[in-house]
Amino acid sequence: MTLRVYLSGEIHTDWREQITSGAADLDVSFDSPVTDHDASDDCGVAILGAEDNKYWHDHKGAMVNAIRTRKGIEDADIVVVRFGDQYKQWNAAFDAGMASALGKSLIILHGPQHAHPLKEVDAAALAVAEEPSQVVEILRYVLTGKLPG
Amino acid sequence: MTLRVYLSGEIHTDWREQITSGAADLDVSFDSPVTDHDASDDCGVAILGAEDNKYWHDHKGAMVNAIRTRKGIEDADIVVVRFGDQYKQWNAAFDAGMASALGKSLIILHGPQHAHPLKEVDAAALAVAEEPSQVVEILRYVLTGKLPG
Amino acid sequence: MTLRVYLSGEIHTDWREQITSGAADLDVSFDSPVTDHDASDDCGVAILGAEDNKYWHDHKGAMVNAIRTRKGIEDADIVVVRFGDQYKQWNAAFDAGMASALGKSLIILHGPQHAHPLKEVDAAALAVAEEPSQVVEILRYVLTGKLPG
Amino acid sequence: MTLRVYLSGEIHTDWREQITSGAADLDVSFDSPVTDHDASDDCGVAILGAEDNKYWHDHKGAMVNAIRTRKGIEDADIVVVRFGDQYKQWNAAFDAGMASALGKSLIILHGPQHAHPLKEVDAAALAVAEEPSQVVEILRYVLTGKLPG
Amino acid sequence: MTLRVYLSGEIHTDWREQITSGAADLDVSFDSPVTDHDASDDCGVAILGAEDNKYWHDHKGAMVNAIRTRKGIEDADIVVVRFGDQYKQWNAAFDAGMASALGKSLIILHGPQHAHPLKEVDAAALAVAEEPSQVVEILRYVLTGKLPG
Amino acid sequence: MTLRVYLSGEIHTDWREQITSGAADLDVSFDSPVTDHDASDDCGVAILGAEDNKYWHDHKGAMVNAIRTRKGIEDADIVVVRFGDQYKQWNAAFDAGMASALGKSLIILHGPQHAHPLKEVDAAALAVAEEPSQVVEILRYVLTGKLPG
Amino acid sequence: MTLRVYLSGEIHTDWREQITSGAADLDVSFDSPVTDHDASDDCGVAILGAEDNKYWHDHKGAMVNAIRTRKGIEDADIVVVRFGDQYKQWNAAFDAGMASALGKSLIILHGPQHAHPLKEVDAAALAVAEEPSQVVEILRYVLTGKLPG
Amino acid sequence: MTLRVYLSGEIHTDWREQITSGAADLDVSFDSPVTDHDASDDCGVAILGAEDNKYWHDHKGAMVNAIRTRKGIEDADIVVVRFGDQYKQWNAAFDAGMASALGKSLIILHGPQHAHPLKEVDAAALAVAEEPSQVVEILRYVLTGKLPG
Repeated sequence: MTLRVYLSGEIHTDWREQITSGAADLDVSFDSPVTDHDASDDCGVAILGAEDNKYWHDHKGAMVNAIRTRKGIEDADIVVVRFGDQYKQWNAAFDAGMASALGKSLIILHGPQHAHPLKEVDAAALAVAEEPSQVVEILRYVLTGKLPG
Repeated sequence: MTLRVYLSGEIHTDWREQITSGAADLDVSFDSPVTDHDASDDCGVAILGAEDNKYWHDHKGAMVNAIRTRKGIEDADIVVVRFGDQYKQWNAAFDAGMASALGKSLIILHGPQHAHPLKEVDAAALAVAEEPSQVVEILRYVLTGKLPG
Repeated sequence: MTLRVYLSGEIHTDWREQITSGAADLDVSFDSPVTDHDASDDCGVAILGAEDNKYWHDHKGAMVNAIRTRKGIEDADIVVVRFGDQYKQWNAAFDAGMASALGKSLIILHGPQHAHPLKEVDAAALAVAEEPSQVVEILRYVLTGKLPG
Repeated sequence: MTLRVYLSGEIHTDWREQITSGAADLDVSFDSPVTDHDASDDCGVAILGAEDNKYWHDHKGAMVNAIRTRKGIEDADIVVVRFGDQYKQWNAAFDAGMASALGKSLIILHGPQHAHPLKEVDAAALAVAEEPSQVVEILRYVLTGKLPG
Repeated sequence: MTLRVYLSGEIHTDWREQITSGAADLDVSFDSPVTDHDASDDCGVAILGAEDNKYWHDHKGAMVNAIRTRKGIEDADIVVVRFGDQYKQWNAAFDAGMASALGKSLIILHGPQHAHPLKEVDAAALAVAEEPSQVVEILRYVLTGKLPG
Repeated sequence: MTLRVYLSGEIHTDWREQITSGAADLDVSFDSPVTDHDASDDCGVAILGAEDNKYWHDHKGAMVNAIRTRKGIEDADIVVVRFGDQYKQWNAAFDAGMASALGKSLIILHGPQHAHPLKEVDAAALAVAEEPSQVVEILRYVLTGKLPG
Repeated sequence: MTLRVYLSGEIHTDWREQITSGAADLDVSFDSPVTDHDASDDCGVAILGAEDNKYWHDHKGAMVNAIRTRKGIEDADIVVVRFGDQYKQWNAAFDAGMASALGKSLIILHGPQHAHPLKEVDAAALAVAEEPSQVVEILRYVLTGKLPG
Repeated sequence: MTLRVYLSGEIHTDWREQITSGAADLDVSFDSPVTDHDASDDCGVAILGAEDNKYWHDHKGAMVNAIRTRKGIEDADIVVVRFGDQYKQWNAAFDAGMASALGKSLIILHGPQHAHPLKEVDAAALAVAEEPSQVVEILRYVLTGKLPG
């Protein structure tokens, strides 16, 4: 069994690296969005031409990023969505909704302070974790049946 | 042509009433989540039994609410999602993601101050409006071909 | 919103009547399997001809019953599956698996003594209840937003 | 032609080993649930944190196990479900229902004493066998056209 | 429960009338192909213009008939396919294959002399009957739980 | 049998009226795009606010029109697409491609001068007609089995 | 581009060998049913135990063969169905119906004497050929753009 | 992440070569229709036999080409559709409609003079480009996160 995992959400901490390095010995492939914030915001106009209006500037970028995001989510067996402490992160919750409707196994990763506002998102998940290391342990258990410790 | 519309998101202003009363003369049926905040939070334990742990209290409620939410979104032709100024509103973005993956026509309703953090959600929409009256005008145009004014 | 509900599982108590009479004032339609045990066992041979071999006797009946069961589950918004104290009830668990794979909202109804062996089935449900009256309360809340008491 | 086979159900005898060793010369890959009973029961709390309430202890484990089970069933061409003599085995019947709704080729494996209570499950199958060796012979015939003896 | 039934296959005996009149008291709606053999053969050229080549004459008619056939099969809960004693009847078997792939409940109706060449078609069915009256009895049982006699 | 028909394409002649009046005695419901050219071009900015850039002016309108177009095509049993002598009509061919991928019965309506450039579109159709009256005759035949003359 | 092709239908001439050897230089993989007539008829009872009743003898074999047939058709890009001069060949037409409903590209192979009774089947095909060599030429053209001669 | 890209539309300039050579260092595989105009027009009759009637000549060719086109579009993650200055190009718009209904990421490539008549097609796209080099830059960004310059 090989698992394809998409790592969605927060881009300001190293949680993706913790998971990919922790799972380096497992039969897992990882995809994720472009995590360079500036490139992600400007990709539309940088490639397809400038826009005077900030709304369409953002729109063109969001559309180009959607090519990668959709591919990553549609190909995944498991979608992990991380909610951090900053920003609105509505795109993370949007990805979780897409993944749920597509029947993906969903793992939500957040601190306990976000449990109440994320209750509907968590309710669609097969696991709710607080630490990236727990996601690694889930992947290890799913693939090998081994538990930590 | 009859349209089924699901009104998702913010529950603290009267935007739903503005839309349903504005569209009262149109061939539209509306569904929405339970908008009584307390009932929505407590429905799981009120019906299925108390939980000591707040997480499971919330979880049982979110699961029961999902019965209504999923039915409403799956039956809809159009899903309108309103983002207000308060709270995290991750459930609204989650509904938008589900609706998008299910191929629903999506209308997003929010003030201009939220345009940047909602750019990925807006990019999945067929219309982005600021006022409930604009949603009514869209419904009127889609059903009758009449424009405002 | 109108709900279609399929009532699967145990056929030796009056739980279906408790639900349908309790929900008589709600906009719900109910379907269920044939609950006459003898008719259900013998329908295949009674209509399509006798079989010497008990296995094929049972098989012909199970196939004819599947016409009704599949229609009921596929048309339903909500599938309620009741596990009682007698018999193997593998057909109830099979119906729950079908309903889950078809994306139906699943409500499981059983006594606490069955919680451990039903944990995988319960994990696919949006609500786990012990009493038929709780199912009625869920239907009432989903349709009207009213909680008991 | 390569076949992917998921082996669901009873975990207390060596039937999986009989099939995988018997089919070792065939172009088949096998998946199965975690068959270590204790690990399977405790995986949720071992990774995601302890629960006071046995119901939620079980629930967290069942959810984590579902990541593997769903992946295995969804990727399979053939799902074999084995019913033994002990326990309720509702999860086995649930897997069979999922597999059937997903259009998988279903092979059910059980002793003759279970034929009557399994008649609805058997009716959804393309083969009903009593011995693991018969499953191997089916795989061999499907891949090579060779019959036993 | 209302059943939609599509009656496919042989057009030279009154089996459809036997079923529809026998089921007149049941909540069933019936569809069927155009059973006027000449109209069915010539509909394409009669409406869309003559063809010199017999192959294209037939082709245009078969395409127009497919509009009705596909609608009838796609809308049906149950597809009944009757094989008679004359002609190749490959279109009947084709309809059965379509119905099976679409997940319809399939009832096959034929005399015992055709059992061997129809074994693959029968294997996809939930009931195999010899007489139209048996189809009526199945519909009655599925809808009411009543057995004959 | 009731047919839902979507009439896509050319908006500068009265072909829709010819079909709807010709089929007035049949059990058919018709949908179509907004055929007021100016309203169709300007609906986006008229409702959602002006755009300086003509591209985004057009884009907002096309998105709002898509709400109606998608609903009409998705609900249809039959999609009729008319190609006239003027304009590029790429939206008509786009609708035909959508309808084909969604498995709708496709009828293409065009003069003989367009047969070569429409060969790929015609190849996806169940009927290719030159006159609106032929579409009426197809609908009549599909519903009643009656041929013209 | 790699093509997966399933070769269904007549098993008494060497048409499959003509196609597979003719296409030996192309990037195509072929699957087919078991073409050993006796093995195909008896596989059910040979593996799963004898049946007194010929109907169930046939039934068990047809079910086991369906494991291979469904896998072959579901995995195919192109399904070729050959109709010969002998036997009823209803299973061939059934396979064509399944392939059509699953959206496969269908190529039908038969002599001109069968054109009229196969008109509905041919109408679902993208090519109708008389000779196996024409199927090879289609595969060559689809993969390389090269025409014969 | 590997991307499969289908290049549909205009066949009279070297835009495909510009994209495939520009993306030669990326993990992308490309498919396209047969771009030899004469072979594409005549493939049906060259392989399957001559037709007196030009309509059926074209039809047979369009059907054979559809085998390749459908496979290319269905397997693609991204469908690029190029509109040039000549011909009706309805097949290009038809491919775009199919790709959109199948949920593919759509990139439309055309000069500014075609923006108005392509507004409905562009509205279904995630990117609208004028130059093949922009398509290469999108592919590079989607796969590597690198922007030009």
